[in-house]
Amino acid sequence: MAASTALGVDVGGTKLLAVRMDDDGQVTTEATQDSPRDAPSLIEAVRETVDRLCGGSVRSIGVGVPGLVDVSGTVRFAPNLQGLSGHPLRCELESAFPGVAIWVGNDATAACWGERMRGAATGSDEVVMVTLGTGIGGGIVSGGLLLEGAHRYAGEFGHMVVDPHGPLCPCGKKGCWERFASGSGLGMLAREAALAGTASRLVELAGGDPEDVRGEHVTRAAAEGDFSAQDIMDRFAWWVALGLSNLANALDPELIVIGGGLITAGEVLMNPTRRAFQKLVEAPEARADLRIVAAALGASAGAIGAAMRAAAEG
Amino acid sequence: MAASTALGVDVGGTKLLAVRMDDDGQVTTEATQDSPRDAPSLIEAVRETVDRLCGGSVRSIGVGVPGLVDVSGTVRFAPNLQGLSGHPLRCELESAFPGVAIWVGNDATAACWGERMRGAATGSDEVVMVTLGTGIGGGIVSGGLLLEGAHRYAGEFGHMVVDPHGPLCPCGKKGCWERFASGSGLGMLAREAALAGTASRLVELAGGDPEDVRGEHVTRAAAEGDFSAQDIMDRFAWWVALGLSNLANALDPELIVIGGGLITAGEVLMNPTRRAFQKLVEAPEARADLRIVAAALGASAGAIGAAMRAAAEG
Repeated sequence: MAASTALGVDVGGTKLLAVRMDDDGQVTTEATQDSPRDAPSLIEAVRETVDRLCGGSVRSIGVGVPGLVDVSGTVRFAPNLQGLSGHPLRCELESAFPGVAIWVGNDATAACWGERMRGAATGSDEVVMVTLGTGIGGGIVSGGLLLEGAHRYAGEFGHMVVDPHGPLCPCGKKGCWERFASGSGLGMLAREAALAGTASRLVELAGGDPEDVRGEHVTRAAAEGDFSAQDIMDRFAWWVALGLSNLANALDPELIVIGGGLITAGEVLMNPTRRAFQKLVEAPEARADLRIVAAALGASAGAIGAAMRAAAEG
Repeated sequence: MAASTALGVDVGGTKLLAVRMDDDGQVTTEATQDSPRDAPSLIEAVRETVDRLCGGSVRSIGVGVPGLVDVSGTVRFAPNLQGLSGHPLRCELESAFPGVAIWVGNDATAACWGERMRGAATGSDEVVMVTLGTGIGGGIVSGGLLLEGAHRYAGEFGHMVVDPHGPLCPCGKKGCWERFASGSGLGMLAREAALAGTASRLVELAGGDPEDVRGEHVTRAAAEGDFSAQDIMDRFAWWVALGLSNLANALDPELIVIGGGLITAGEVLMNPTRRAFQKLVEAPEARADLRIVAAALGASAGAIGAAMRAAAEG
């Protein structure tokens, strides 16, 4: 097995996804497993993946983790994977894999780079990417390069406060964008409608109990054409667009890429988001060429981006 | 008079400020006059300024205007100087001053570059600057370069929505950051307190009528040690910090520079802003080196930055 192989690993809150990328940049294999809960298990999982996907030999390994990772590759803040917090993960991986180029960074930043290099943002030099999942992550491309910031923490869009009177966030603040525009935000809007008795199809899909209504029920019912589900999706899309317009005003991208689990909703989400964005962004007529598109690489974006960052360091 | 002189012009909503910058980068002269209301008057004003400050001969002219200016130097959106809207200002200046290098851009972006090159952000490569005046403007330095975005509209922080239930903004949205964290936002908080009867010193400074209370009365009374004025300033600083933390989460700067008219408040504003920021930004312990400082170039920042942008093009 050639040692020119690059491995990319995306460590999610629940699942780890790995890709092998060959010299020509083609992704040849993927593998998933449960996410390790601490640094030693993560390194062991990477070793097993190197054996399984790459026959034991790689030139570079890129790892994306959900949290703040500083320039040294140390995980500084990982609320959903606290076993990694404080670990100098890059150094630990360099020690475990001598001579292999290592990149460790934020998962959504890696996904942004994956979409920039091989996905929906290929060829775009001014990009904002947001990943809408359980929470919200993000990444910025400016002048064709990843905007990393002073510590490499850039792209933390989820805790942008958009309503100080809004629901409490685990971070301690009120009204963070990810309380409204993530999967849990969609579930909150859906249960509100279900409990108010205005979303019978959602309650039916949830098995009869309004408390069991989740975001995926909205997505499914909206796709079926259910009016109340589409109404919920429109209100949800308004919150998505609110944060996007804040970011567009600040960063002036030519392209906004929406990724994460919620894009399975497709045009049922994208269309009302685009419409609301036009009403919210400053001077939309001066940004007629700005596009909002769905991510192209799906769940693999983070692993592919991490593989490409590491390969570039090797 | 040497033709190596650079002229910088900052066209504000009410005043035009011009600086002459010599070869060694030193600002030698300043002049102010009322802002011209349309493009022909602006070009005439620039010509008079070239004659007065530079003896009729310049190598480059930089002009900062309050609004969106695209890559071609055309003013696309200027709500406070509508006579400039739609004008290809760079072309018009090139035609009026043949052979002179011209830069036309946003005023706050120019101020950010001025502070980066000669002011509070000298030597910092990851900077966010906000100008708190009648409204809010801004600029971003990333990797040591001005982040301009796809059209050169980047840095429009004022219309970031931070409270969708908040007061209506002239832009048509509700709860834009500049409704809370600008001079008019401070005035709003002050009148609220004055009308509620909890700000007697402010009413006194305003001449007796609570309706006449303005932001500058808060600044003055807070500096005197008046408790209710300090309380208003603390609440105002919370709104300033809210927007700054949103921007810091997104951009991960090492330095935030606060400019604009409100910095005359000094530490009465800066201290509570820093305290509130620590509570609002994500993972403050991982950003211990992030500083929030006042701008150093005062009202000249925009003109100096515009002069430097133009000189770099020449």
